[in-house]
Amino acid sequence: MGPFTDNPALSISSLGEKALLAQIRLWLGEAAPPSPAGMGDDCAVFAMEPAKASLITTDSVVLNRHFLESDPPALVGRKLLHRNLSDIAAMGGIPLRAVIAGFLPRTVSLAWLEACIRSLAAEALQHRVDIIGGDLTETTHDLALNMTLLGSATSPLLRSGARPGDHIGVTGPLGGSRLGRHLRFAARLEEGKQLSALPGIHACMDISDGLAVDLPGMLSPDCSAALDLAAIPLHPDALQASHLSGQPPLWHALHDGEDHELLFMFTPDTAQDQLPPHHCIGRILDHPGGLLLDSKTGAPISDQHGYEHFR
Amino acid sequence: MGPFTDNPALSISSLGEKALLAQIRLWLGEAAPPSPAGMGDDCAVFAMEPAKASLITTDSVVLNRHFLESDPPALVGRKLLHRNLSDIAAMGGIPLRAVIAGFLPRTVSLAWLEACIRSLAAEALQHRVDIIGGDLTETTHDLALNMTLLGSATSPLLRSGARPGDHIGVTGPLGGSRLGRHLRFAARLEEGKQLSALPGIHACMDISDGLAVDLPGMLSPDCSAALDLAAIPLHPDALQASHLSGQPPLWHALHDGEDHELLFMFTPDTAQDQLPPHHCIGRILDHPGGLLLDSKTGAPISDQHGYEHFR
Repeated sequence: MGPFTDNPALSISSLGEKALLAQIRLWLGEAAPPSPAGMGDDCAVFAMEPAKASLITTDSVVLNRHFLESDPPALVGRKLLHRNLSDIAAMGGIPLRAVIAGFLPRTVSLAWLEACIRSLAAEALQHRVDIIGGDLTETTHDLALNMTLLGSATSPLLRSGARPGDHIGVTGPLGGSRLGRHLRFAARLEEGKQLSALPGIHACMDISDGLAVDLPGMLSPDCSAALDLAAIPLHPDALQASHLSGQPPLWHALHDGEDHELLFMFTPDTAQDQLPPHHCIGRILDHPGGLLLDSKTGAPISDQHGYEHFR
Repeated sequence: MGPFTDNPALSISSLGEKALLAQIRLWLGEAAPPSPAGMGDDCAVFAMEPAKASLITTDSVVLNRHFLESDPPALVGRKLLHRNLSDIAAMGGIPLRAVIAGFLPRTVSLAWLEACIRSLAAEALQHRVDIIGGDLTETTHDLALNMTLLGSATSPLLRSGARPGDHIGVTGPLGGSRLGRHLRFAARLEEGKQLSALPGIHACMDISDGLAVDLPGMLSPDCSAALDLAAIPLHPDALQASHLSGQPPLWHALHDGEDHELLFMFTPDTAQDQLPPHHCIGRILDHPGGLLLDSKTGAPISDQHGYEHFR
């Protein structure tokens, strides 16, 4: 089932905006509280938890960028939620409530949209995220969905803060997400919460653009990272991707992105049994430049870019 | 200056995502606080005011829907902010912070985007709105900007709550916004705050789809609204639109939309000098049906639709 239909009776143009909004609220079901706590007024009204840090993030899925016409719509809705959940996870936070903005050509199929929204709603309910507002706009060509997600954290984990001597951990294997995992990954919410409760965690982010891009982005200019390349966990998908591309599996682990594993830096005296399951892949050096170095040879690791829009 | 350029050196493709994000942060200037209170980490971190109702709204501007290639980019950025501010105004709230999601073809002109963002930033600063996060995605064809705006209110004004006997007020003249006012309107924030502080205001919304669509949406099924058609304030633009369309000016006042004046219901014993400047255009009747009636004849007012997407 593709996102578009030539039959106007099966497309969103058969409903118009108001009827479509009503339909979407039905599909969202229990994930969408009634107005004024949810959709239906000029704003949604909610009570923010006091005495905690509040978190906000916004992320989108766009056809032919983040998913294909042939991808199951249920996985598209799931991915929109988990892309945002992963940002909350990277801060060690708890997701709470979200709004959705849809950019839809008039030929979008009602069945496709229903499957997408119902799946998103089921995942949202499971993670106790209320969908409290939204907006729909007609586009000429592009199909995009955006979510802004609010959350809270007792002690947010930042990307910055890694210090020389810190060890570098990653919560799971990397590479080859494009073979399908980019639609099915589960945000590392429990791992993020566990990390944020520990005293010795100095920095954390989720890997979205690839380890080779995201790790340098966490380093201050006065330090560098030494990677133990043999310790980087390779996902079986990285091996399969290697067969298809001719690049080594490690290349895919470094550059593919959309892994959404947590990458974090911690003091070496952190008790291993307090940390979530992880692989230790290197350490932070007192070496200026914000470089990525091979811990075996000391040579810089190729700075070929991971995924970047507009290039 | 149009939004697109054939010259790659003048387009966003000359920068790539990371450099473009850095550029946008520069253009936002003081409107964008440094990380972790603003852009630069997985989420933005903020402290929500306790003991108040929190508000959230999301609205977009899309090329050829909400603006044209020939419209000044500064007004496009302004409109994105004020569309969202107007939703906060309609709740009687105070705007606080926002995130922006951009959906941009690679041919978007840097100069156009800079003018758009700088204008948005200037307006945001003036209204003390922090731009604390964002996301950029490449599209094939459509150019869209979305904002999610957070605010707070002591006692939020809802759309529902109008009672028989209430008077109907509107904060300014209506009609013909398409002639240019839709890009230049100022959200009625002061008026909304003033209304929310009064005890006798039962309902409020901002007119976005046209009085004839928005007013029925505020009525419960057990009451109707009698409109004094002669009292509806006609904007000079409604007269000019009438010359162009051949429709009466009143038709434009009822159906054009994008007026963003506040429409509110209040008990007749409300002291007039406590209310913001307004026109009293009718009252709520104890008459089932949620209808719009002509107060002079009692006849239903044509339910021709205002603007609806996807139709």
